[in-house]
Amino acid sequence: MESASGIEAALETAVASCDELGCPPRLAAALRYAVFPGGARVRPRLCLAIAAGCGDPQSPLATATAASIELLHCASLVHDDLPCFDDAAIRRNRPSVHRAFDERIALLVGDALIVLAFQNVARAFIQAPDRLPGIVLALARAAGAPVGIVAGQAWECEAATPLEEYRRQKTGALFVAATLGGALSAGADPAPWRLLGEHLGEAYQIADDVRDALATTSELGKPCGRDADLGRPTALAELGVQGAVEHFDRLIASATASIPDCPGAEFLRELVDLEAQRLLPPSLLQRAA
Amino acid sequence: MESASGIEAALETAVASCDELGCPPRLAAALRYAVFPGGARVRPRLCLAIAAGCGDPQSPLATATAASIELLHCASLVHDDLPCFDDAAIRRNRPSVHRAFDERIALLVGDALIVLAFQNVARAFIQAPDRLPGIVLALARAAGAPVGIVAGQAWECEAATPLEEYRRQKTGALFVAATLGGALSAGADPAPWRLLGEHLGEAYQIADDVRDALATTSELGKPCGRDADLGRPTALAELGVQGAVEHFDRLIASATASIPDCPGAEFLRELVDLEAQRLLPPSLLQRAA
Repeated sequence: MESASGIEAALETAVASCDELGCPPRLAAALRYAVFPGGARVRPRLCLAIAAGCGDPQSPLATATAASIELLHCASLVHDDLPCFDDAAIRRNRPSVHRAFDERIALLVGDALIVLAFQNVARAFIQAPDRLPGIVLALARAAGAPVGIVAGQAWECEAATPLEEYRRQKTGALFVAATLGGALSAGADPAPWRLLGEHLGEAYQIADDVRDALATTSELGKPCGRDADLGRPTALAELGVQGAVEHFDRLIASATASIPDCPGAEFLRELVDLEAQRLLPPSLLQRAA
Repeated sequence: MESASGIEAALETAVASCDELGCPPRLAAALRYAVFPGGARVRPRLCLAIAAGCGDPQSPLATATAASIELLHCASLVHDDLPCFDDAAIRRNRPSVHRAFDERIALLVGDALIVLAFQNVARAFIQAPDRLPGIVLALARAAGAPVGIVAGQAWECEAATPLEEYRRQKTGALFVAATLGGALSAGADPAPWRLLGEHLGEAYQIADDVRDALATTSELGKPCGRDADLGRPTALAELGVQGAVEHFDRLIASATASIPDCPGAEFLRELVDLEAQRLLPPSLLQRAA
């Protein structure tokens, strides 16, 4: 998936809008720290690829939607890392936001990023307001309760966690928003794109579990073996490495097969293949063998 | 200000939308706990009054906007009460959300309420999408960085706090969103309504400081004397009770004078007077004398 520089520029514009006179300086610095430098930006790249696949490449609307999806993702990382949840010291190879600043600032940065995600699409869609309700609803469903990231995270506070629901909400929901958001911002019907988001979200989660077990800390940018340490239920614990990789391959095949007829269908099928190789590179899998 | 039952019904609809199958039950319960029963609902009542003043009474768009403003207010209370900030045990005469549930759930409830605020207006404005960008931008500016509630709260994390900025962001911003949102949802020009929101926001903050010093814990629904205990800079510390009350009266006069020509100007002037008496009742002021 492509257009990395467009995503970074859109995120820069969004974050810079908070650097206005009157913003408390530590908050402004921490907001920037939480967003840059980023990870693989996989969700916004997916969003842009779908918009391009729908025949609307380099769309400023899709770019804004993509940036907002990444802002919601960054918000969830900052809040998940807090002491009351993962108490993670390291994120993206450096101190997590609450370690680099403090817990109070990290709480507020997450809040501000959620707000900024909605503000950012509202600014962009002034030119196409009829598409804004759908975009806001797709982002909100992926981010909040009852079935978005917040809900997924809240399953960690229940006595029993339904594993599929947990994964679908905590990881899958934002992938679905990325495919729906890409289609919506291109003015296309979003419904045929839901399945692709669901399959890719699940595949990504499995790849994450496998990498958590097999990769090194510096490859991950955060401590590895963390799932096992926290006693989290993972695909690996359920299926073993070999089984997890097979499940991943099946999900990627389903994702490819789900791509609906559209101007860029062939291009999207190739992108999904490339992304699968990036997520679980052969060199990593050899380590398991 | 009026239409209390409409506000409660709109809040009920918004919160009930999170009660869908798949929502972690403790999160759903805590969301409801954070919103009901409410306080005076002063911000949403203000929003509805402005829409009515603009000639659009009982508007479902204004009611949705009013509910979203209250959801953002509730979110800020839940996060301000957390151990890393005020560590408040009591809110609205019963345990705060993190005491009644736990810190993790309170963190997520705040996040979910912010998301819900935007989702709620997006749902309502599907019928009038050209008004949605303005509404989302008004809500976002009041809630986030650089100059909204989050920014105001973040001044508590700086070595020095510029008092006026702090108050304007932490309290004033959402009052401004209430007046702008009322006008915007009625299809009116929001600009002439900004000053009313600013004056009322400041007056409300002063009244809050005075009540914190003079009222009893059960009247407040939370421990009184809290500002003094936390060493917070307040109008009272600056001006004394008599000076603060005089400043309050001047702000109310300015608020009344700022009301622009509109179908309901006279009605709004009366409402501001009634609200001023509710905020600082003569019986409370006699205690100071």
